[in-house]
Amino acid sequence: MAMIALFTDFGLQGPYTGQMKAVLHQMAPGTPIVDLFADAPIGNAKASAYLLAAYSLWFPPRTIFLSVVDPGVGGTRPALIVKADSRWYVGPGNGLFELVRRRCDDALNWDIEWKPERLSASFHGRDLFAPVAAMLARGDPPPGRPRSDATDHRPDWPDDLAEIIYIDHFGNAMTGLRAATLTPDTRLAVGDRVFERARTFGDLPPGTGFWYENSTGLAEIAVNQGRANFDLGLTIGTRIQVIP
Amino acid sequence: MAMIALFTDFGLQGPYTGQMKAVLHQMAPGTPIVDLFADAPIGNAKASAYLLAAYSLWFPPRTIFLSVVDPGVGGTRPALIVKADSRWYVGPGNGLFELVRRRCDDALNWDIEWKPERLSASFHGRDLFAPVAAMLARGDPPPGRPRSDATDHRPDWPDDLAEIIYIDHFGNAMTGLRAATLTPDTRLAVGDRVFERARTFGDLPPGTGFWYENSTGLAEIAVNQGRANFDLGLTIGTRIQVIP
Amino acid sequence: MAMIALFTDFGLQGPYTGQMKAVLHQMAPGTPIVDLFADAPIGNAKASAYLLAAYSLWFPPRTIFLSVVDPGVGGTRPALIVKADSRWYVGPGNGLFELVRRRCDDALNWDIEWKPERLSASFHGRDLFAPVAAMLARGDPPPGRPRSDATDHRPDWPDDLAEIIYIDHFGNAMTGLRAATLTPDTRLAVGDRVFERARTFGDLPPGTGFWYENSTGLAEIAVNQGRANFDLGLTIGTRIQVIP
Repeated sequence: MAMIALFTDFGLQGPYTGQMKAVLHQMAPGTPIVDLFADAPIGNAKASAYLLAAYSLWFPPRTIFLSVVDPGVGGTRPALIVKADSRWYVGPGNGLFELVRRRCDDALNWDIEWKPERLSASFHGRDLFAPVAAMLARGDPPPGRPRSDATDHRPDWPDDLAEIIYIDHFGNAMTGLRAATLTPDTRLAVGDRVFERARTFGDLPPGTGFWYENSTGLAEIAVNQGRANFDLGLTIGTRIQVIP
Repeated sequence: MAMIALFTDFGLQGPYTGQMKAVLHQMAPGTPIVDLFADAPIGNAKASAYLLAAYSLWFPPRTIFLSVVDPGVGGTRPALIVKADSRWYVGPGNGLFELVRRRCDDALNWDIEWKPERLSASFHGRDLFAPVAAMLARGDPPPGRPRSDATDHRPDWPDDLAEIIYIDHFGNAMTGLRAATLTPDTRLAVGDRVFERARTFGDLPPGTGFWYENSTGLAEIAVNQGRANFDLGLTIGTRIQVIP
Repeated sequence: MAMIALFTDFGLQGPYTGQMKAVLHQMAPGTPIVDLFADAPIGNAKASAYLLAAYSLWFPPRTIFLSVVDPGVGGTRPALIVKADSRWYVGPGNGLFELVRRRCDDALNWDIEWKPERLSASFHGRDLFAPVAAMLARGDPPPGRPRSDATDHRPDWPDDLAEIIYIDHFGNAMTGLRAATLTPDTRLAVGDRVFERARTFGDLPPGTGFWYENSTGLAEIAVNQGRANFDLGLTIGTRIQVIP
């Protein structure tokens, strides 16, 4: 069965996620909907692209990612459907799907051609992307035409991003680096602070900073019984140095 | 199919929304439930009334709004069911449905007569309003008697409220003014700051404050690439001046 | 029908709850899932144990509590299934189920023996506990062996905890004391501030602190039209004095 996963920077509060879900319930009744991220880096398609690529691969085939980090809504950025191997992605063509596409074997791309009766200037997530995600969940063919330009590509973005891309509820700081690309001896540094790799929190004394492979494969900086963001001054965009 | 939308000031955290949903799942299995607002202005039935009226009209017919902004819970305020055109509203009679009722063609009102086995003093949302919403979702007739007094009416409240009624995750400040009641030339002012109308964010230089019709029809004050609440000192209750 | 209730300290944001729900939707399609607490006291199994015991009793028989407050994840703490009267609990054996077990008539305990294909070091909620909860929701027998040791017991924890265990969205402070164990004349004190019992908020003048039986049976300290946490300096762990 198809499942729809929401990946947005709408925040947890407010009506935006609820309105999108109302569209999905009406147009694709019975389809499970999962909130993956409602707090992707606000308006930051680049950091979000690395987060989405890492987390979406954990999901089963046929999952549809309704992905809305869309600071250019109402402007000229394209509106896309991407099929990357067996998973679907719907959202703005602002680089958000760059890493998903680069890391899959086979990607297909469509420009959305379907138009809603009423398209607000500021909420394409509800008016355009959610209906398209619902169509895909129902098994409809992608309502668009194969894409013929590459304005949504970002070939200059690296394969892994040596920056903090997300801070979680525990204060742990995810990087845009896949742990599998790093060795057991790799150290990560922020300014003059250097972090060794550990397996998990219990391996180190309280208060010690370290990095580890998080449960979805990203290199993540944490402090045992502490909060890496506060204790180490990390925030989204902080640059990381990789010491092989 | 009926859908239940939750509109509360319970906040996102804590057990309250979850307990209400447990009641709904038990009493109306399979009914889609959507979180519309969990962060309506706390204890502020007036601001909430304008927010609910604007957002509920976006939803399809037969939607049931389980609406709990209820600072007087445990006191003497009535407990109501309102049918406004094709939509249902369940909640406290403290003015919360004043604008919904005023803006519809045909409103019917009931005092809830059904009583739960156990009614807590502080959580009628779970014990009284959620069961009644579930009954309506199942297609039961309203479990009450037609209402014969007007203690829940607020005839002194204006048709549109020239105040900030909600701040969203992006820092945008919604007013209680319907954009359709304003002209393209209308300016909104807060103190000595005056804002022109724009179509959307991209139309203005970064850092510029403006107002626009948001995706659900309210006049909303925003700052391109900024946060209107911080940059302009806006909060719930801030008065707005309308300059026609 | 079975229902799964989530009780975690994962926070509202981030991917953790969503990933657990994706597992549940895949393995137990159609089972209602309710977010009970996503903000249980972080890493605090003791305070969480009193919160879980109070709130889970409100739920119907057959509910499955997927309970993850698990600071020792990746270490040696056991992984448990507990059946307490008619309800199921799945989670770490770190004391989290101590009060649930102590307050029921009949408890059965299993060590989880099922192993996932891939078990991350830091997220057993997703990889181990969610699949087991899904199996129970489907009606499978508990995938474990009856438990033969008591390392997860905490006989030194009191039957009721005279501490603040949760602060809600309104600033109200829940204690770990069941109101039913206290008399109408019982007063609660924090330092030199003493609080009388009231029925509900409206019974007292604005600004007055008091305690009352909350909607789920816990003694809770509140301030009419105020915020008990700020106004009275209460936080999780603040000790309460019971004056009979």
